[in-house]
Amino acid sequence: MNKGMTAKGAATRLRIVVAAALLIREKGAAETTLDDVRAATSTSKSQLFHYFPDGRADMLVAVAQHEADQVLQAQQPYLDDLSSWESWQQWSRAVIDHYTELGRRCPLGSLTSELGKSSPEARTVVTGLFDAWESALVRGAEAMRPGDGTAAERARVVLTAVQGGVLMLQTTGRTAYLESALAAALEPLRTPASVRG
Amino acid sequence: MNKGMTAKGAATRLRIVVAAALLIREKGAAETTLDDVRAATSTSKSQLFHYFPDGRADMLVAVAQHEADQVLQAQQPYLDDLSSWESWQQWSRAVIDHYTELGRRCPLGSLTSELGKSSPEARTVVTGLFDAWESALVRGAEAMRPGDGTAAERARVVLTAVQGGVLMLQTTGRTAYLESALAAALEPLRTPASVRG
Repeated sequence: MNKGMTAKGAATRLRIVVAAALLIREKGAAETTLDDVRAATSTSKSQLFHYFPDGRADMLVAVAQHEADQVLQAQQPYLDDLSSWESWQQWSRAVIDHYTELGRRCPLGSLTSELGKSSPEARTVVTGLFDAWESALVRGAEAMRPGDGTAAERARVVLTAVQGGVLMLQTTGRTAYLESALAAALEPLRTPASVRG
Repeated sequence: MNKGMTAKGAATRLRIVVAAALLIREKGAAETTLDDVRAATSTSKSQLFHYFPDGRADMLVAVAQHEADQVLQAQQPYLDDLSSWESWQQWSRAVIDHYTELGRRCPLGSLTSELGKSSPEARTVVTGLFDAWESALVRGAEAMRPGDGTAAERARVVLTAVQGGVLMLQTTGRTAYLESALAAALEPLRTPASVRG
């Protein structure tokens, strides 16, 4: 959000981003123009350029950031409280359900492709997402105090299982990879330190 | 390879594919034209269309297939003989070294993007690669007879660790994800059945 934006301005901008995100999920990022967004949100050209001064690329970055937020949102409330085995199990279920529903679609991926996977803008969004995601997993792993390896290592293994499982799901249409990989990655977290004494 | 192609014809075609693959690794798939390939291989237009009747798309599919073969090649000789813990360790090292060297580059990914990730041609190449890869891992997991889960499950976990680790490496530039995920995925294979009795 721009500094100094009023609450009303922020709300309008959010409304445009949410509508653009839906449009892009339907049509694909490559096929969505600023005019499409203008028509779908009943905003004027000057309004759009007020919120996204650099035009379409600016808007795509905002939508990508929104989709990155959605990735974490889909894992709540579990992701922020991974302090019990039940919570890890529920989180795992939420992740599997979320990506099973998306199937071969990858809203954030289609946006970063359109922005250029290695563009600074795409990298900032994706790196920010992975950092926040990994931090939450590290906090959870620390709460479980796994026997083997550090919490940071455990978190990396879990995050990597999700990324690999989702990639295999999107490629093959099968959820078995995500399910097996998550189950294996979580196994060392099963027994909390308190139980082990 | 086309049926009925002579050995000389097959060799010429392979020479063109290898040269095109190098060119595409340098310039990117999107920026490589048939004329570039013609110039780099000193072949005539009619020769190129003899080997790739549908032109550029045909050639890109052939190069994608070649790059898919390279993915498996980089894991040999270990991938085809994963019958000891040493072999799994050497295989794991080969995988990590191969992808560390590639870094953020992904030759096969850039080709399937150019063909359209969900095009039948790209899907055939990628599915064929994953099938062959997973089969080799299943054979290896069967040889190790892991205690927990089936060999098929173990193989899925290992393959998913590689895919997730490579994705994280390409996104963050860090090898720690691939290393941690592979170590965790291989751990249950450490003790062969014969040692357990």
